[in-house]
Amino acid sequence: SLARKPRSQMSSYATSSESPKLLFRQLFEKESSTYTYLLADVSHPEKPALLVDPVDKTVDRDLSLIKDLGLKLIYAINTHVHADHVTGTGLIKTKSPGVKSIISKASNAKADRFVEAGDKIWFGDLFLEVRATPGHTLGCVTYVTGDGPDQARPRMAFTGDALLIRACGRTDFQIFTLPKDTLLYPAHDYKGFTVTTVGEEILYNPRLAKDEETFKNIMKNLNLAYPKMIDKAVPANMVCGLQDVAPEAI
Amino acid sequence: SLARKPRSQMSSYATSSESPKLLFRQLFEKESSTYTYLLADVSHPEKPALLVDPVDKTVDRDLSLIKDLGLKLIYAINTHVHADHVTGTGLIKTKSPGVKSIISKASNAKADRFVEAGDKIWFGDLFLEVRATPGHTLGCVTYVTGDGPDQARPRMAFTGDALLIRACGRTDFQIFTLPKDTLLYPAHDYKGFTVTTVGEEILYNPRLAKDEETFKNIMKNLNLAYPKMIDKAVPANMVCGLQDVAPEAI
Ligand SMILES: [Fe+2]
Ligand SMILES: [Fe+2]
Repeated sequence: SLARKPRSQMSSYATSSESPKLLFRQLFEKESSTYTYLLADVSHPEKPALLVDPVDKTVDRDLSLIKDLGLKLIYAINTHVHADHVTGTGLIKTKSPGVKSIISKASNAKADRFVEAGDKIWFGDLFLEVRATPGHTLGCVTYVTGDGPDQARPRMAFTGDALLIRACGRTDFQIFTLPKDTLLYPAHDYKGFTVTTVGEEILYNPRLAKDEETFKNIMKNLNLAYPKMIDKAVPANMVCGLQDVAPEAI
Repeated sequence: SLARKPRSQMSSYATSSESPKLLFRQLFEKESSTYTYLLADVSHPEKPALLVDPVDKTVDRDLSLIKDLGLKLIYAINTHVHADHVTGTGLIKTKSPGVKSIISKASNAKADRFVEAGDKIWFGDLFLEVRATPGHTLGCVTYVTGDGPDQARPRMAFTGDALLIRACGRTDFQIFTLPKDTLLYPAHDYKGFTVTTVGEEILYNPRLAKDEETFKNIMKNLNLAYPKMIDKAVPANMVCGLQDVAPEAI
């Protein structure tokens, strides 16, 4: 079991990010326990918005919320090629033709735009920075809110499956180089958690608070079940949610 | 259908609250789609914390998170006598004997402390204010974060079942007298939404954006199913989660 470190080592407790420009919403898809994130620059006249990891089943909910809030969706972004749900990207592009899809170059999937470590994805005066966090898949990236006076404080990181709250994480530990008060938003949670921080996971993540050898053994002994949607989801997600595939084909 | 008001009428877009003192976490129980809220004053040496609407099934998760964060739980609070899940209050009191339970006087349920409109529930230098929002049940209250320089901005309201995001609401409309940027956190959500604002619900809540007569007709025509857990949950919750009942009795 984990040795409990004294409280004084816990980093800042901020658990929400403040920016006069950023609108932020966390959205949940129950069947696959997937979180989708909506971010927008509401100080910009066009209110440009992006979605991180949209799910096919909740596209209508997401687009309707975006409409209610008077936002203009410009990007639909994936952290990786998901094996557990079908991305909403393709459906969004069908329903809202101006939207561009984004995924990492290393994912080998289709998209309108490919990103690599260090790239910036701008929406209005705000941006997401790309960090390579391979492990779960080779092409996994983490999107981190920008660093700067106008950007959200504390920073927010959308980790995909590279880091899950307390439970998972197959990553290069890059995430732990972010400031301790960085808010971590995973692609999934199966226990009802919505957010965590770098400081918390360093102390309490039962897998990542171990050295590399121990970590490898833990992962080997998990005997993870074959993901139930992998055979349907991966081929669909490789074409970034049906980029060039007729909707009736899936 | 709803007449769409121009964007300029949408209120402030802040969708997270900032306070150097407040630690805030939203937690989800999937089976009953219930949200539990953790609030703590982390600037106070004891880090006093409270839980709003804890669920019996997720008590261990909640207590373990509270331990991880180095908080001291002092109150377990209900917005009303729930019909859809068993409150975690009784179990929390068993596992963490210092904790006091709170519910409204008008609920007629058991608890260590009863509150009425206007009462303040202090935790450290932060407090929740009680507002009467009867309708869903006679004893429904909404807990609103304090107004003042040290308190969270924008304010946050824990509405219980008095207001659900876009979907429901049997209330005296008291909630709509709060500032438009007030963040509204419901006891449940069945579509994966996590938060809304007063401004948003005034414009888009399909039931509450109607006059009283229309609202009554909508509710009458819903033909709501008999809540599946009501026969088990209500008697248990009336004793505020087993206040004086042996655990094996349920
Ligand atoms: Fe995934
Ligand atoms: Fe309820």
